[in-house]
Amino acid sequence: MDCPLCLASAEHVVWEDGRCRVIRVDDEAHPGFCRVIWNEHVAEMSDLLPADRRHLLDVVLATEGALRALLHPDKINLASFGNMVPHLHWHVIPRYRDDRHFPESVWGQAQRQGVIHPGADSVALARAIDSALATGY
Amino acid sequence: MDCPLCLASAEHVVWEDGRCRVIRVDDEAHPGFCRVIWNEHVAEMSDLLPADRRHLLDVVLATEGALRALLHPDKINLASFGNMVPHLHWHVIPRYRDDRHFPESVWGQAQRQGVIHPGADSVALARAIDSALATGY
Repeated sequence: MDCPLCLASAEHVVWEDGRCRVIRVDDEAHPGFCRVIWNEHVAEMSDLLPADRRHLLDVVLATEGALRALLHPDKINLASFGNMVPHLHWHVIPRYRDDRHFPESVWGQAQRQGVIHPGADSVALARAIDSALATGY
Repeated sequence: MDCPLCLASAEHVVWEDGRCRVIRVDDEAHPGFCRVIWNEHVAEMSDLLPADRRHLLDVVLATEGALRALLHPDKINLASFGNMVPHLHWHVIPRYRDDRHFPESVWGQAQRQGVIHPGADSVALARAIDSALATGY
């Protein structure tokens, strides 16, 4: 196995429990970009047991809620592709009308040089994820 | 309001309940492409009440399960952007290693002419979504 999400080297983990982890994505144009990674090597949401599926989505949506609370982006983008790395993970991306790619996805054509909106402090982000998980928002 | 997902003209709806609908997306290169649209005009998952969030995700994952059961794709792609149309909707896309864009997203650069894998019959798809909702798969 040489799956980069199983090896998990050089990650900046901001939140984790025994089942999944939230990391900061090193993206110069989109500093608030987070990734939620299921620890076990499975490919699809429908490969998970219903309770695990729900847990992963709770963490994805808590990360969305935390990013909204801390950064007030114009939009949140959520995506799970896995075409290149078929190990279940979710992209959670705060987007701004004046960022480099808006309204394209962050993987699309650049639209402008773009404003670099700062990401969230890691400790504040971890706390906001805990808070969102506790309250449902 | 001139939101195209509120107006909902010329859609091919394959499944619906009072809260959301699943439509076929008219994409020549990816005939199995479905979209799950929340009926009410809200922008973000975290704008929904927790029970509504869960319901929408149940329908998204039932659509994933139905497409896997009927089409056996190499991968499923899930995404909710809303940068262009900020009305909550999910893309559910069966992907194949030899399709036009793989491993890029379907919005990315074409990689080849690509094999056109047929989509699912609408009645079979509706039944498979019902079945996935009933069983959790």
